[in-house]
Amino acid sequence: MQNTEDRIRASFVAQGLMTTIGAKLDRVADGEVQISMPFSKSLSQQQGFVHAGAITSIVDSACGYAALTKAPAGFEVVTAEFKVNLLRPAIGTRFVAIGKVQNAGKLLTVCTGEVRAFKDNDESFKVVAIMQATFVNVSA
Amino acid sequence: MQNTEDRIRASFVAQGLMTTIGAKLDRVADGEVQISMPFSKSLSQQQGFVHAGAITSIVDSACGYAALTKAPAGFEVVTAEFKVNLLRPAIGTRFVAIGKVQNAGKLLTVCTGEVRAFKDNDESFKVVAIMQATFVNVSA
Amino acid sequence: MQNTEDRIRASFVAQGLMTTIGAKLDRVADGEVQISMPFSKSLSQQQGFVHAGAITSIVDSACGYAALTKAPAGFEVVTAEFKVNLLRPAIGTRFVAIGKVQNAGKLLTVCTGEVRAFKDNDESFKVVAIMQATFVNVSA
Amino acid sequence: MQNTEDRIRASFVAQGLMTTIGAKLDRVADGEVQISMPFSKSLSQQQGFVHAGAITSIVDSACGYAALTKAPAGFEVVTAEFKVNLLRPAIGTRFVAIGKVQNAGKLLTVCTGEVRAFKDNDESFKVVAIMQATFVNVSA
Repeated sequence: MQNTEDRIRASFVAQGLMTTIGAKLDRVADGEVQISMPFSKSLSQQQGFVHAGAITSIVDSACGYAALTKAPAGFEVVTAEFKVNLLRPAIGTRFVAIGKVQNAGKLLTVCTGEVRAFKDNDESFKVVAIMQATFVNVSA
Repeated sequence: MQNTEDRIRASFVAQGLMTTIGAKLDRVADGEVQISMPFSKSLSQQQGFVHAGAITSIVDSACGYAALTKAPAGFEVVTAEFKVNLLRPAIGTRFVAIGKVQNAGKLLTVCTGEVRAFKDNDESFKVVAIMQATFVNVSA
Repeated sequence: MQNTEDRIRASFVAQGLMTTIGAKLDRVADGEVQISMPFSKSLSQQQGFVHAGAITSIVDSACGYAALTKAPAGFEVVTAEFKVNLLRPAIGTRFVAIGKVQNAGKLLTVCTGEVRAFKDNDESFKVVAIMQATFVNVSA
Repeated sequence: MQNTEDRIRASFVAQGLMTTIGAKLDRVADGEVQISMPFSKSLSQQQGFVHAGAITSIVDSACGYAALTKAPAGFEVVTAEFKVNLLRPAIGTRFVAIGKVQNAGKLLTVCTGEVRAFKDNDESFKVVAIMQATFVNVSA
């Protein structure tokens, strides 16, 4: 995985949006990637919770990089589509997105993801969003 | 609509994420809202195009505010879920999200949205993403 | 279009499910296909309305055949994914699904569709469902 | 659960479509329901595999009944929307849909589901489809 992880870390750094929203690449495993983001007022919707767009950004990237761990050599992945259900308001001090590959085909990879909300140093969490997404392998 | 528009403008200003990504509320009409966002490297994915998360952020807000124009007095809307298809890379100098109400029920409002990519001052555009979304009316 | 229409008519006849649910191929145009289905108790959910699965079946086929009108020669299409919002109970005597291509790429075609409910010979209708879907071109 | 199971069994019998497609209610547990369907040519798409619409029908019902196990007394559920990814062709002799509640709120319940394809008496299976869906509680 080292090679893949290096490649994903380099790609992550090139994602301007991840820096803008304060996201960090926590973990890269075969078929599973984790990205976290601290709460910030700069990510809020009108009630002060984290905006669905910021939540979607980290879980889309987590799923996309999970898909990339399964892509053939010389291929990149791009998002074809995703669907997100927001289960409850995104309230917390830290949000962790986990993307997992459900099926990796030649052309398309389907992933599911979830975003967990943590408060301070408490280990317990609430799942605030779930995603089902499709990625396309494209020549790099 | 003036009252609704004022309420939406006040809500928009309270969305920290809209400021962070440089989004502007362009137009509020009955059942339809338009939000625009200039290109910025701070919104990019790894290839330099605008990240799906930023594209989703503006079209989710546009659809949500379109839903709000149809909400009963004393109600807010929150996003229950959305689905986005990314039709092509988000390449352009300016992106315009348009959200439209398809059906407004007592509890749920269903909207569709699209994001158009413009280059410089050219009036022509390409649709880079389409959304289908559900919003819930909640007591304000 | 004659050739494409013939091909779609032949394919439609081979879809056992379309016969089972009483569906008919009404119209094939470039990028747009219409399929209708009369009400039947054999298609109902528990309240007597048409089941979401039957509604989905006709709009999936309508979107898929719309995608096929844009597929390169020698290619079939298969459904990669779809998302359906059910706007109101599927009450009516006849249901008409219309699928339209939104973007046809080399590999993937994105369509939107809707299902209209008609009562008896009344020309007015209510949209009971909308779909956003992705199809993949595969060698026939 | 007996009361809920009785109620679900009565509701299932009232679903004309479930009879039409040969579906059976296999199992009702708290927050999880299983429905199976044998292969039949009458459910096919043009290549002879099971049509996405039939696959969707059983997993929509499985998710909906899973949601119903969590609904307050005196409430029914109706499908608001669902999204299905078709992971591979629906080839098999028997298909089993499993619906699970992910979050049950006052108004909305979010479920995920999958459809497994089995061949003959082999215990191994392939997941052919996954669903993410929203159900609304409505007064019965």
